[in-house]
Amino acid sequence: MNDRFGWKTEQERGTGMLEELKKQVFEANMELPRRGLITYTWGNVSGIDRESGYFVIKPSGVDYDTMTADDMVVMDLEGNKIEGKYNPSCDTPTHIELFKAFKEVGGIVHTHSPWAAAWAQAEREIPCYGTTQADYYYGAVPCCRVLTEAEIKEGYEKNQGLAIVETFQGKNPLHLPGVVCAHHGPFTWGKDASEAVHNAVVLEEVAKMSAWTEMINPKVGPAPQYMLDKHFLRKHGENAYYGQQNQ
Amino acid sequence: MNDRFGWKTEQERGTGMLEELKKQVFEANMELPRRGLITYTWGNVSGIDRESGYFVIKPSGVDYDTMTADDMVVMDLEGNKIEGKYNPSCDTPTHIELFKAFKEVGGIVHTHSPWAAAWAQAEREIPCYGTTQADYYYGAVPCCRVLTEAEIKEGYEKNQGLAIVETFQGKNPLHLPGVVCAHHGPFTWGKDASEAVHNAVVLEEVAKMSAWTEMINPKVGPAPQYMLDKHFLRKHGENAYYGQQNQ
Amino acid sequence: MNDRFGWKTEQERGTGMLEELKKQVFEANMELPRRGLITYTWGNVSGIDRESGYFVIKPSGVDYDTMTADDMVVMDLEGNKIEGKYNPSCDTPTHIELFKAFKEVGGIVHTHSPWAAAWAQAEREIPCYGTTQADYYYGAVPCCRVLTEAEIKEGYEKNQGLAIVETFQGKNPLHLPGVVCAHHGPFTWGKDASEAVHNAVVLEEVAKMSAWTEMINPKVGPAPQYMLDKHFLRKHGENAYYGQQNQ
Amino acid sequence: MNDRFGWKTEQERGTGMLEELKKQVFEANMELPRRGLITYTWGNVSGIDRESGYFVIKPSGVDYDTMTADDMVVMDLEGNKIEGKYNPSCDTPTHIELFKAFKEVGGIVHTHSPWAAAWAQAEREIPCYGTTQADYYYGAVPCCRVLTEAEIKEGYEKNQGLAIVETFQGKNPLHLPGVVCAHHGPFTWGKDASEAVHNAVVLEEVAKMSAWTEMINPKVGPAPQYMLDKHFLRKHGENAYYGQQNQ
Repeated sequence: MNDRFGWKTEQERGTGMLEELKKQVFEANMELPRRGLITYTWGNVSGIDRESGYFVIKPSGVDYDTMTADDMVVMDLEGNKIEGKYNPSCDTPTHIELFKAFKEVGGIVHTHSPWAAAWAQAEREIPCYGTTQADYYYGAVPCCRVLTEAEIKEGYEKNQGLAIVETFQGKNPLHLPGVVCAHHGPFTWGKDASEAVHNAVVLEEVAKMSAWTEMINPKVGPAPQYMLDKHFLRKHGENAYYGQQNQ
Repeated sequence: MNDRFGWKTEQERGTGMLEELKKQVFEANMELPRRGLITYTWGNVSGIDRESGYFVIKPSGVDYDTMTADDMVVMDLEGNKIEGKYNPSCDTPTHIELFKAFKEVGGIVHTHSPWAAAWAQAEREIPCYGTTQADYYYGAVPCCRVLTEAEIKEGYEKNQGLAIVETFQGKNPLHLPGVVCAHHGPFTWGKDASEAVHNAVVLEEVAKMSAWTEMINPKVGPAPQYMLDKHFLRKHGENAYYGQQNQ
Repeated sequence: MNDRFGWKTEQERGTGMLEELKKQVFEANMELPRRGLITYTWGNVSGIDRESGYFVIKPSGVDYDTMTADDMVVMDLEGNKIEGKYNPSCDTPTHIELFKAFKEVGGIVHTHSPWAAAWAQAEREIPCYGTTQADYYYGAVPCCRVLTEAEIKEGYEKNQGLAIVETFQGKNPLHLPGVVCAHHGPFTWGKDASEAVHNAVVLEEVAKMSAWTEMINPKVGPAPQYMLDKHFLRKHGENAYYGQQNQ
Repeated sequence: MNDRFGWKTEQERGTGMLEELKKQVFEANMELPRRGLITYTWGNVSGIDRESGYFVIKPSGVDYDTMTADDMVVMDLEGNKIEGKYNPSCDTPTHIELFKAFKEVGGIVHTHSPWAAAWAQAEREIPCYGTTQADYYYGAVPCCRVLTEAEIKEGYEKNQGLAIVETFQGKNPLHLPGVVCAHHGPFTWGKDASEAVHNAVVLEEVAKMSAWTEMINPKVGPAPQYMLDKHFLRKHGENAYYGQQNQ
């Protein structure tokens, strides 16, 4: 228990802080096994409250079958635990670096979903072979370089976050809401935890389809840029006309 | 709401137009997730009433979990919304061109089912390697060419339909009830919405089997033409003897 | 209805002939969708009563959701329908040739299960790469040659059966209880309908594993013969010690 | 029934020996079909009570649908059945050799899970391409050599165990808790039956991901050693910080 922020009164009323966000992050975490993205506990989702600067993240190694919204851990961006009975995910320092660098991002997901992880293990970006990817990712999904020995030995998870940020120099993280980290696995994000999971599902699907595309035609090139423009922009941005937003 | 066709009285009685067709199209749309053809809302089915010239299509981006038959949108072949509270699928102009050119077709399906989409992304037709395909597709499933930049910038979805029609010059669309569109995904059709979905399921299955066939034997050729003739014609046409039709 | 064999009295008592066998064959057919071996109605199972010389087979193109044991069709080995309200599977003449040639066989299965069909489409026998296959198939699963144009035009399904019998010249069909037919799909069999389905499940599993084996190591050779001997013979034959038979 | 160990009194009270262990081993066996690792009865799990030197193992060829904890067989390390109405798994002699050589191991699993079996059939170790594997396997998963004809003819299952032990000369079996046996399939183990099954699930997952990795990039090399060190050691050993153990 931690009282330095004076929220004990809330606890005495039977509630902790950021209850709504904890529910959202819990639900987003539970979506990972439902969507077949994880084996055992190999994934974590976080969501941030930009006003307070606190974020909520899954506890480390807790079984999905028994996990509840109350088990979510509240952290600040310096890595201090603000609330929660469990240790946060050991990937928490990666989430922190991404939240700090990507100001528009409200939710982050890490999984070892197998097709995305296979591209990561293959040290390759995922080319944009078609509209399925272009509807969500405006181009190839980048591959983050392998960390150096020094980076891994000292502050591995934090350096993983910094290397992802480095990979996105000059890129809009909401236009490319994911990355595969060499010899590791994918991270995705979005405006909130739910959208970040959505993008993780899409990433796994397009990772699979891209591998199959190369299997069917090893010489194929990416979809033409003007096709990507059309598809990405009909779903995103001010002239979007997919869905019910312009009704 | 739209009263220019005077159907308000029907609505006052609690019914809209084409109720039976809306139910069929709704059911056909719901078959897509049941058959594993779509992720999220990545698909749409339509069905046409040739007498009135109106067709019914899925609304754009509406969640399958909450969608009802009443949410289906009624359109005419000029692209006017005749009835419905939602925007129609943004692929509606493609459906229109196919309904206009393929007079025998009563239902159309678009999905991003992954194996068919992989062939599309690979810019390859699907060779007819066996009887599974020949039972429904009388030869290779064509690959529709990439649209030009001009075609995509001006009326993308309409031009997608026109390019498919171009692909089927000299072909019987009911003998080859589907296509893969380069760097995009499949469209299938049939005499009604239900048969169009059936053909979408078959297409995904044979797309998968053809890829595996080439993986097992990269040098294999298509099945002999006389084998295709036999299989297609024992299920279709006046001498068909599959099923219970000749009893 | 058919009364030339005098079974009308049985029907008047509310039962047809071979009730037990019809139940077994019905159950074996229902196992095909449960085990994921078929899409729609792409499969059929039969079982024979060697005493009467009649066999029971699935009707053609009937939906698995509504099919009952009473819908099974009773046939004789000359191809006459003895009992049943539906047409038998259009692959019936193939079953007949196999029952006639393979005297120890009591049940036959045909499916388009995708991995086995991919080997069939690739015109390749399935090498015996390991003990999983050797536990049921004593060596490579043979590939039946493509039929000639004449064979397909005149009596296609019967000639398919004869070509399979030709493939098994000098082979024991119970030691190799299945075949892949070039550009078509698999047939399997066993001492009864249930074992035939079991062997169809095994065939699909080993077809998948063999393809993956070649993908992982394109230069791999089959398992050594002495390994096949051991595995096949520890489950089959008089010195078998797998399971509870020697207790 | 066997009374030479004097446990009849327990039986008279309605209980056998090692009741708790039989439940654990039964539960671990039932996890195999739940996790999709087995077809039919193609797997077995055992667990040992190091104090008595007795271990519990699945009976041979018994259907998972009807199997109960009471059907588990109690054996000693000389291969004598101590309790149980069924024959033990015919792989029992392999389990015995592993329990004898790997003193820290408390549970053993054998399956024919298809991706792990494909590597086995391909006669290849599974390279460590990333952190998913490194979290559980500290390096490549070894491939046990093909047995000789003499080894297979005389005491096949025992010699399989000895060959695995030979493969692990100089290796810590708890740091590499599994093996693929050439042209056969995988064995995994752990501190108890439950952990052994966990490691079997992980092995199948990484076997799949490694095959896909090579498909996407045939020239890729393994993850750097310093990355493996970090991932394995953050979950295992005294400085582990994954999960809730250091709270």
